[in-house]
Amino acid sequence: MNAKKPLILVTNDDGITAPGIRALIEIATTFGDVVVVAPDAPQSAMGHAITINDTIYCNSIIIDKGAPQKEYSCSGTPVDCVKIAINELLDRKPDMCLSGVNHGSNSSINVIYSGTMSAAVEAGTVGIPSIGFSLLDYSLEADFEPAKKYIKLMIEKCLTQGLPSGVVLNVNIPKLSEEKIKGIKVCRQADAYWQEKFDKRTSPLGKDYYWLTGAFINKDKGEDTDEWALANGYVSVVPVQFDLTAHHAIKDINTWDL
Amino acid sequence: MNAKKPLILVTNDDGITAPGIRALIEIATTFGDVVVVAPDAPQSAMGHAITINDTIYCNSIIIDKGAPQKEYSCSGTPVDCVKIAINELLDRKPDMCLSGVNHGSNSSINVIYSGTMSAAVEAGTVGIPSIGFSLLDYSLEADFEPAKKYIKLMIEKCLTQGLPSGVVLNVNIPKLSEEKIKGIKVCRQADAYWQEKFDKRTSPLGKDYYWLTGAFINKDKGEDTDEWALANGYVSVVPVQFDLTAHHAIKDINTWDL
Repeated sequence: MNAKKPLILVTNDDGITAPGIRALIEIATTFGDVVVVAPDAPQSAMGHAITINDTIYCNSIIIDKGAPQKEYSCSGTPVDCVKIAINELLDRKPDMCLSGVNHGSNSSINVIYSGTMSAAVEAGTVGIPSIGFSLLDYSLEADFEPAKKYIKLMIEKCLTQGLPSGVVLNVNIPKLSEEKIKGIKVCRQADAYWQEKFDKRTSPLGKDYYWLTGAFINKDKGEDTDEWALANGYVSVVPVQFDLTAHHAIKDINTWDL
Repeated sequence: MNAKKPLILVTNDDGITAPGIRALIEIATTFGDVVVVAPDAPQSAMGHAITINDTIYCNSIIIDKGAPQKEYSCSGTPVDCVKIAINELLDRKPDMCLSGVNHGSNSSINVIYSGTMSAAVEAGTVGIPSIGFSLLDYSLEADFEPAKKYIKLMIEKCLTQGLPSGVVLNVNIPKLSEEKIKGIKVCRQADAYWQEKFDKRTSPLGKDYYWLTGAFINKDKGEDTDEWALANGYVSVVPVQFDLTAHHAIKDINTWDL
């Protein structure tokens, strides 16, 4: 790290008052100047959605009196928050973007649904080293203490080592006490999917509607996966890319005689 | 193709009445039994968003009287449409999912924002061969005629050849007359990003708000990219994967001494 303090953008998808982002802000302020731009309401499972057909509101807000960070509460999605931070609110390009700490897992296929990870990915697309953090505890009363040591370590390493171009990090932390977390594993995304069940109900006016409910199905028993690491007491770190090209498949499709 | 007609799920992100999906349905019905489950309103740029904190409505609807397809209009996102189709509305797993034809490009980095492509990806995560189609014309009066030959070819090839596991196709078609389209190129996603500008305005009540407006910046001049193909009169076909692991970066991050 050079003498100048790094500028760190912090966001999330659970909303600016969620305990997870408050824990992340507290850690981030020990590393640099922090600006928080986060949704004014929960935006979980918004994926990489952006607001193109509606207005976006963004207000300066003080949540922790006397704390060093600047904060803005935004009506948009997590990706909107990153875009408006970088292009409108910040004086200069941030040196790092941190997203989370999410209340709940973003391991495996969840990465494609996750607002937390999509915010980190968005910052990555414009060349900002970014990390998304998630704790495997959906509760609003989740205990972020055991996670802090690993969050600090990942931020420190990322600031000193930098990240390969086109790569952001997806860090998931098991719901365990500090003594029980065994360490960190760098992993690949497990090959899993969601088997959904729709709960069909009828409104008081007689109209049918549905709630989405699903089960996570992991068909991948590989010991190099994030699911294995988390199930075995490790923090999982998956390097994530936004070049979605299945490079290995180009040759196959080229045999189609198109 | 075997004797039994394939079951084809059709969806989009521009909404069920958009000319693009009507053109795609017309083509799809020449290949199999078609069920349409598509948003009841435009859902562009919704990415992989799903509805987890709200109800979803889904209604049987007839748009083309006497046409063979079944249709459902859905209040959810494009990914919700695919999930409810597969898990609630259809009698069996579809043999194929087609998404689009989108009014506007989904080439390069647009793939991560695109509701059209996210719907195709969602079907891919549960093993359904899927293609997203987009025409490089945002107009509601876009002419889909020149695109039809290529859409038919891609569906036919996909039904006969199948797709590699974990891969869906992102097909973009230039806004050109049939004579001017030179053919098809299988490509990689160009390395581009959006440089946003926020248009700041004041509401009649004196509150500041923003509109997101941006410029697409392509820093990748590779002739093997989708941007090159489209700019040079070709239909681009990018095989897209939902394993986001940057496999090449695992070794790098492992040197961090975590």
